[in-house]
Amino acid sequence: MNKAILLIIDGLGDLPTPKTPLQAAKKTNFDRLAKSGAVGLLSPIAPYIVPGSDTAHLNILGYDPHTYYPGRGPLEALGAEIGLQDGDVALRANFATIKNGEIIDRRAGRIETKDAKQLESILNMQIDDAQVIFKSTVEHRGVVVLRAEGLSPKVSDTDDHGEYKQSIPLNDSIEAIKTAALINQFTNEARNRLQNHTINKKRSLPANIILLRSAGPYKKIPSFAERFGITGACVAGGALYKGIARAIGMDVVAVPLATGDAKTNLKAKGSAAISALVDHDFVFLHVKGCDSAGHDGDFKTKKQFIERLDKELLPALMKSGAYLIITGDHSTPVSRKAHSGHPVPILVHGDSERTDDVLKFDEINCAAGGLGHLEGKDVMPLILNLISKAKKYGS
Amino acid sequence: MNKAILLIIDGLGDLPTPKTPLQAAKKTNFDRLAKSGAVGLLSPIAPYIVPGSDTAHLNILGYDPHTYYPGRGPLEALGAEIGLQDGDVALRANFATIKNGEIIDRRAGRIETKDAKQLESILNMQIDDAQVIFKSTVEHRGVVVLRAEGLSPKVSDTDDHGEYKQSIPLNDSIEAIKTAALINQFTNEARNRLQNHTINKKRSLPANIILLRSAGPYKKIPSFAERFGITGACVAGGALYKGIARAIGMDVVAVPLATGDAKTNLKAKGSAAISALVDHDFVFLHVKGCDSAGHDGDFKTKKQFIERLDKELLPALMKSGAYLIITGDHSTPVSRKAHSGHPVPILVHGDSERTDDVLKFDEINCAAGGLGHLEGKDVMPLILNLISKAKKYGS
Repeated sequence: MNKAILLIIDGLGDLPTPKTPLQAAKKTNFDRLAKSGAVGLLSPIAPYIVPGSDTAHLNILGYDPHTYYPGRGPLEALGAEIGLQDGDVALRANFATIKNGEIIDRRAGRIETKDAKQLESILNMQIDDAQVIFKSTVEHRGVVVLRAEGLSPKVSDTDDHGEYKQSIPLNDSIEAIKTAALINQFTNEARNRLQNHTINKKRSLPANIILLRSAGPYKKIPSFAERFGITGACVAGGALYKGIARAIGMDVVAVPLATGDAKTNLKAKGSAAISALVDHDFVFLHVKGCDSAGHDGDFKTKKQFIERLDKELLPALMKSGAYLIITGDHSTPVSRKAHSGHPVPILVHGDSERTDDVLKFDEINCAAGGLGHLEGKDVMPLILNLISKAKKYGS
Repeated sequence: MNKAILLIIDGLGDLPTPKTPLQAAKKTNFDRLAKSGAVGLLSPIAPYIVPGSDTAHLNILGYDPHTYYPGRGPLEALGAEIGLQDGDVALRANFATIKNGEIIDRRAGRIETKDAKQLESILNMQIDDAQVIFKSTVEHRGVVVLRAEGLSPKVSDTDDHGEYKQSIPLNDSIEAIKTAALINQFTNEARNRLQNHTINKKRSLPANIILLRSAGPYKKIPSFAERFGITGACVAGGALYKGIARAIGMDVVAVPLATGDAKTNLKAKGSAAISALVDHDFVFLHVKGCDSAGHDGDFKTKKQFIERLDKELLPALMKSGAYLIITGDHSTPVSRKAHSGHPVPILVHGDSERTDDVLKFDEINCAAGGLGHLEGKDVMPLILNLISKAKKYGS
């Protein structure tokens, strides 16, 4: 079958303490694939550059972020199924907890998605000539779209490394001044509306402020099918990943049980990926659990999520007959609770493909693999070559 | 001796079924060189990009094809010793077999070179103000040069993935319209002349049509000696490879017994390469047999050609005292019958050079070699460094 599934395990890579979560996990299927496939290390952007999830995904999917990255806001908005219009400015939003003027939790106790959804409707509003669209996505995450004449993305974040700051214009333009003022008006009005909401009355960490960052303008990107001559589908829970897929014109498969968190239904995602292979050449399958656990510094949850992938997701993928490419978009070491620039393991498996001597899929063993050390930009050429859909350069 | 021979084995790389031809071949000398030298993998263009032979050779020889690739037509024409003039448009030609309007063999049964040569004279013609120069090269391959005022390479191929299509102009210019019309007139007249030729009467797959592709304009390229400060010679049978060498101002050594196919006289090519070392710093030695066998899906012939190289070519090269660099320009897996983007093995051998632990020269073992994973652009710096002819960057 000349089709491929790219499984991106968000935040997969880690550091040894003394083992990495991937080394410590029981993962028969990952290791079986490593043994009968070929492995290597991947620098999602370039060696030791610390990637964002957005830039890493764009680069891995064949879109150099230096050219194609519109900022996180628009990608999240597309993921949340907001139909963006030219001139819109979109921002990434967090529900957070503020007390006596200080942010005491920038994720409002990692509020559950269903609670956050109930807060959504009160956060849509008209301010002067501007429409403000708010949409909650997964847990504390959401997106704000500002729609009016004469806006600019050149405004500062209100989410200043965990502190709340008023937005200020980043240049002297009328557009930036207007946009920063709009953001501050929205933030104040949102605080008023949130503080008395029933959902918040029962929470020890109330979702009583919206922190905003990564303002970006909407910009159309040439489609995946145009660029690579193959059809692609995306199976993901998180809004950002669906947004990236929509931005590059991939079909986004609806998987109701894909939650974008550690509790996501992996069997449902696996089935959706395999179904999508029927009428697509390529499926991009995203799972978030490792990254969230890494950010929380939670070794055990990260290890357990890898074990769940091994048991609940890989068997179906291995039976699919498709070429499998498994990697991460960056490392999120538990010891750092943040993204790092350490490369991530990558694995390629398919009929009659080259193998190597490596028997284990982890950060240390993969360094000696037959794929060598790759960069994000190499992944789409690798996949097109695997499925015999690459265009020859020259004759 | 501060001189080097670069042996490019066209289409060398392959995929395991379950062994690659290189793994399956008896190749004592290749493995001896691997053991006492250093090996690695080479991506002739960039990782997993599927190379053409033309772009790959240019890149390996230090000419970035994004800047220097004039199209295959002019390179083949230079290789066929047609003295190109400014304004010429050159195309790659195939003798093919057409029956009831359909191409039933796009290589006319891989017609032998000597038969093809006999058809050459009837294919040179004057059409209105244009001179059409036809030259047969190796087997079914040939080249057409169009010489007239006001021509353009912006015309479609008549060789449309194995189907015959009339050439059409690719833009609205008078030049493109004139060139496409000229190509179609030549094709019709050539069919008339070919169908009754005595050579074709005895053939079950007559060479009764000329298919044309890769129109390109003649463009002078800065010379190898100017760029690298060393003198270079080329020993090759195929017209394309001699053409690339001429395009970059290398001396092309005449080797009457170098046929550019699997029957080429390897001892004669080896002797020619060693003789050329006397008055050149560098010899580029090309052999085609593996690529043709790969395109034909012929594992046994590919393996046997590697064994012939091992027995008939390597001993002389190993005695020469020159630094040896052995690699391919791309993979042509037998299972795909086409070029692929899989990297190719590379081997470096010379007095007092670094070695590694790899004992075998093949696609799998070389992945762990001391040279690591290189790209085509790295080969000329590697060679200049080997022979101590590199210019220092900085002071």
